[in-house]
Amino acid sequence: MEYAKILEEIQQDLLDFPAIGKVTTTIPELATINPDKFGIHLTTINSIDYGIGDSEEKFSIQSISKALTVALAFSFLDENIWKRVGVEPSGTAFNSLIQLEYEKGIPRNPFINSGAIVIADMLVSCLKNPKEDFLTFIRMISGSASIDYNYAVAQSEKDTRFRNAALANFLKSFGNIENDVDEVLDFYFHQCSIEMTCQELAHSFFFFANEGKTKDGKQILTRSQVKRLNALMQTCGFYDESGEFTYKVGLPGKSGIGGGIVALYPNVFVVATWSPKLNKKGNSELGMHALEALTTKTGMSVF
Amino acid sequence: MEYAKILEEIQQDLLDFPAIGKVTTTIPELATINPDKFGIHLTTINSIDYGIGDSEEKFSIQSISKALTVALAFSFLDENIWKRVGVEPSGTAFNSLIQLEYEKGIPRNPFINSGAIVIADMLVSCLKNPKEDFLTFIRMISGSASIDYNYAVAQSEKDTRFRNAALANFLKSFGNIENDVDEVLDFYFHQCSIEMTCQELAHSFFFFANEGKTKDGKQILTRSQVKRLNALMQTCGFYDESGEFTYKVGLPGKSGIGGGIVALYPNVFVVATWSPKLNKKGNSELGMHALEALTTKTGMSVF
Amino acid sequence: MEYAKILEEIQQDLLDFPAIGKVTTTIPELATINPDKFGIHLTTINSIDYGIGDSEEKFSIQSISKALTVALAFSFLDENIWKRVGVEPSGTAFNSLIQLEYEKGIPRNPFINSGAIVIADMLVSCLKNPKEDFLTFIRMISGSASIDYNYAVAQSEKDTRFRNAALANFLKSFGNIENDVDEVLDFYFHQCSIEMTCQELAHSFFFFANEGKTKDGKQILTRSQVKRLNALMQTCGFYDESGEFTYKVGLPGKSGIGGGIVALYPNVFVVATWSPKLNKKGNSELGMHALEALTTKTGMSVF
Amino acid sequence: MEYAKILEEIQQDLLDFPAIGKVTTTIPELATINPDKFGIHLTTINSIDYGIGDSEEKFSIQSISKALTVALAFSFLDENIWKRVGVEPSGTAFNSLIQLEYEKGIPRNPFINSGAIVIADMLVSCLKNPKEDFLTFIRMISGSASIDYNYAVAQSEKDTRFRNAALANFLKSFGNIENDVDEVLDFYFHQCSIEMTCQELAHSFFFFANEGKTKDGKQILTRSQVKRLNALMQTCGFYDESGEFTYKVGLPGKSGIGGGIVALYPNVFVVATWSPKLNKKGNSELGMHALEALTTKTGMSVF
Repeated sequence: MEYAKILEEIQQDLLDFPAIGKVTTTIPELATINPDKFGIHLTTINSIDYGIGDSEEKFSIQSISKALTVALAFSFLDENIWKRVGVEPSGTAFNSLIQLEYEKGIPRNPFINSGAIVIADMLVSCLKNPKEDFLTFIRMISGSASIDYNYAVAQSEKDTRFRNAALANFLKSFGNIENDVDEVLDFYFHQCSIEMTCQELAHSFFFFANEGKTKDGKQILTRSQVKRLNALMQTCGFYDESGEFTYKVGLPGKSGIGGGIVALYPNVFVVATWSPKLNKKGNSELGMHALEALTTKTGMSVF
Repeated sequence: MEYAKILEEIQQDLLDFPAIGKVTTTIPELATINPDKFGIHLTTINSIDYGIGDSEEKFSIQSISKALTVALAFSFLDENIWKRVGVEPSGTAFNSLIQLEYEKGIPRNPFINSGAIVIADMLVSCLKNPKEDFLTFIRMISGSASIDYNYAVAQSEKDTRFRNAALANFLKSFGNIENDVDEVLDFYFHQCSIEMTCQELAHSFFFFANEGKTKDGKQILTRSQVKRLNALMQTCGFYDESGEFTYKVGLPGKSGIGGGIVALYPNVFVVATWSPKLNKKGNSELGMHALEALTTKTGMSVF
Repeated sequence: MEYAKILEEIQQDLLDFPAIGKVTTTIPELATINPDKFGIHLTTINSIDYGIGDSEEKFSIQSISKALTVALAFSFLDENIWKRVGVEPSGTAFNSLIQLEYEKGIPRNPFINSGAIVIADMLVSCLKNPKEDFLTFIRMISGSASIDYNYAVAQSEKDTRFRNAALANFLKSFGNIENDVDEVLDFYFHQCSIEMTCQELAHSFFFFANEGKTKDGKQILTRSQVKRLNALMQTCGFYDESGEFTYKVGLPGKSGIGGGIVALYPNVFVVATWSPKLNKKGNSELGMHALEALTTKTGMSVF
Repeated sequence: MEYAKILEEIQQDLLDFPAIGKVTTTIPELATINPDKFGIHLTTINSIDYGIGDSEEKFSIQSISKALTVALAFSFLDENIWKRVGVEPSGTAFNSLIQLEYEKGIPRNPFINSGAIVIADMLVSCLKNPKEDFLTFIRMISGSASIDYNYAVAQSEKDTRFRNAALANFLKSFGNIENDVDEVLDFYFHQCSIEMTCQELAHSFFFFANEGKTKDGKQILTRSQVKRLNALMQTCGFYDESGEFTYKVGLPGKSGIGGGIVALYPNVFVVATWSPKLNKKGNSELGMHALEALTTKTGMSVF
């Protein structure tokens, strides 16, 4: 497959695309980003890298981190994590409290905010030094020691935390948070503030496509476990647009409001895109189009 | 892959499984079925057939028919069908009116009852003799001329139609039903009453696994179109348990309250199971377990 | 109290009021009404009548009829009616299906559409000739033999019945409709189509203010029973604006989308207003203002 | 009216009443109360006092305080308070977040928790020393200098604050809290912890029945303003049982999970009851029955 040529075609096609999306304003620190940034990076299962555009510029991965925290929690607790969070699509917005009230504090899945906060609580319980240890994990799976939190972004999320604080307190009222609410939120805001390039993102998710093994051969999860998390990304990875992404792109993946998306074709490739303008559902508008173009041009979808 | 041996192992394993599910009572005519029936039929992409148990006994396919009506509507109207129905998981029960009220009469997807009724309305508009023509289509894709409606079951659904009549009238009040409500419901109750064996069911869904072509080579949909419908079955095929099925089985599929499930691995196989006892979410309890065992034993999931 | 002078002042004040409301469009037959019609009629407990404006012109009482059907059902079944319908404000729109789904087919109160349909079903069971008998009842309590159904309006409601048909079928699916859905709806559409003048309306509701006795002394309900229905009108009589009406006017009452409102001060007076322009909540805009002015000028509210 | 005799009869009748309710467990500090306590105190508009049972024992007024904070806020801000909170019954539980999400952070009324927290925020803005000043207000309207906060109860609420903290943060995320969340909650928990006897409670609410004037003649609100707050208590004072209370008792009032209820007949009397066992809706079981008996025996309801 001539990935280099295909990525160039996609980049060319997107020049004509009338992007009407908007950069997120929910986190003030992210609102100042250049909206015209665009990058793609694809890594094949044989570790060949193809990058284009701003693919080596760092950006805030935000909710993409939720797939990495759930992987780490899964490595500690295995199927026990599903006692406190579900595996079903939510049918409501990523930060909704409605479902949580009807379903007594059990979030529908670990990729909506409430679910990710429960996973963060699990990690705060499992890890000796949660923030340090999680960063170590990220650097290990990505093979990139320069990855770090953006403390200004984390602080900005903390300053405007009220919706997430409502979710965390609501979960706690149902008994589904073990630790102190502020401590859990502090970990959560930091995990979301992690910055990576498209390349680092593709490398971080390499183990999901490679039967659980990182690029340099470390076994993070079993083959069966990554299949299950890939399935979960497929049904729940794009908030209330997961069905649309599955329908159009046909690959498991995860998006973030920083404008990043990562998707993977098991045993074939991992691909990461970055473009800050978001559609109404909170997903990167150009990123969605780029990935739809990729599977259309290559015919490579899991279906 | 030694499918015959694997199916035997699965059947053996299920003997020890403490099935606690219950046969559906929502349609009186179906309530009298022998709850201990069990069959599996697997057809490989090379048209080799493997059947076991009651795999050649007819049963009511019920909601499985929704995947076939959407395929037929898709062949007529292509992407236009999404103007009137969405592609997102619902997050609510298969017969819920709540989502419909919040989202102004646009059903979340074609596999919940409201969405299937909208699709039925499209077919009533597209087909000259809706019931006859749909049956002809089913016989054509399955290659089985003996497939028919069960008129007693259709009548039984009509006699207890009130929830579906509420949905259809509600849709009509939002302008999302073109034809007479009773005519649309009559078509809908008949499509659900179709009876097939596991073998016929596997053959009917063969084109989903075979890039749009039936066993005898008729092109029903394009390769891209079946990929999209497979994606839709993956995210929405099992009501409010779609995430669970995707997580555990990792194949696109569709279930019905008659106890049938069909699933497929693109370009590899189609498999149909039948066991009438349903779990709390309305899916066949043993069928779910059989398919989980199948992908666990073979390692064959799309993820 | 100089009611004549007060009504004149109110009429004068309303001339300056910038009415922005709109005549209902949900029933085509009602959409052609002259939007500038306005009338008030007040009857004191001593049967002295005060009318002004178009108070002797007939209009469609619509949902105001719900207070009269519940009174008749109450006279037959007493407290048993609350087994099938509640006495709580709904917190949702008058034609919502959401609450009904969460609360398993028990409408919150008899003044939202679903509740009124259940009451209609009770009357269809209790009355030998439902439509004839109900009309006889209305003529009796009002003392006006000229009151009748408007059959064109009833037919118009039937032609656009889909939302109400959804409600009735939904109720039936929960077992909360005893009779045939179409028969119940036919009765319901007729009850809503009744036409009265403001004067006839005030006279019809006289027994609510007069400890259960009509103007000519017939005991319709006990003193305790009318107190309870007055209480119910207070909390639920104005759809999702009941709190606002209670807050501003402070009298029990009932409104209809034909633009009528009737309110009463127990043991003192009954007042009916008519102005077809509705506010966003579906209540007569000028009628609400007229009644607020009435209680402000007279100081006569129950609180 | 022979109130002394009537209260005795009521107390006698209640001896036979099979109280099955339960003392609240949501606030640990309140869970230890003697469940068999029972008192009534009635004060006539002429300031004659009738007490019976444990009517001079202090108890936690809890949500009854919401009527007093809204009165104080109303005295400062008049109709402006309705820009941030509504006057409609909620149709959902007192601590629900669902309505708040659908209605963008505007609580339905000031008597559900979210609404009361918004009112608390207004008072934190209006008062120089919120807790001290509110206590001064309470002592002034009641004429009882011994009324105080129960600091252990306030601390107990703070320790189990998560549901209320979720509400307050959710409100803040919609911009409907001006002050620091913790400061607002601290005020709110203290207002709820106030302890009074039935007598003090009846005296505190005297101005609601007396056209805005306290027992010793201080004008707290205008005649029109108290009418409006009485109307609000009528439609919203008993959480999701307001319709039931209005239907059975027919007087405006307010309840608290400490087991207290206060109700009033404008220009006639104020009555307070206390019995800690709560029904399923969170209102005092015996208190509700006592007040129903009172209006049945005296015929004194506003309807």
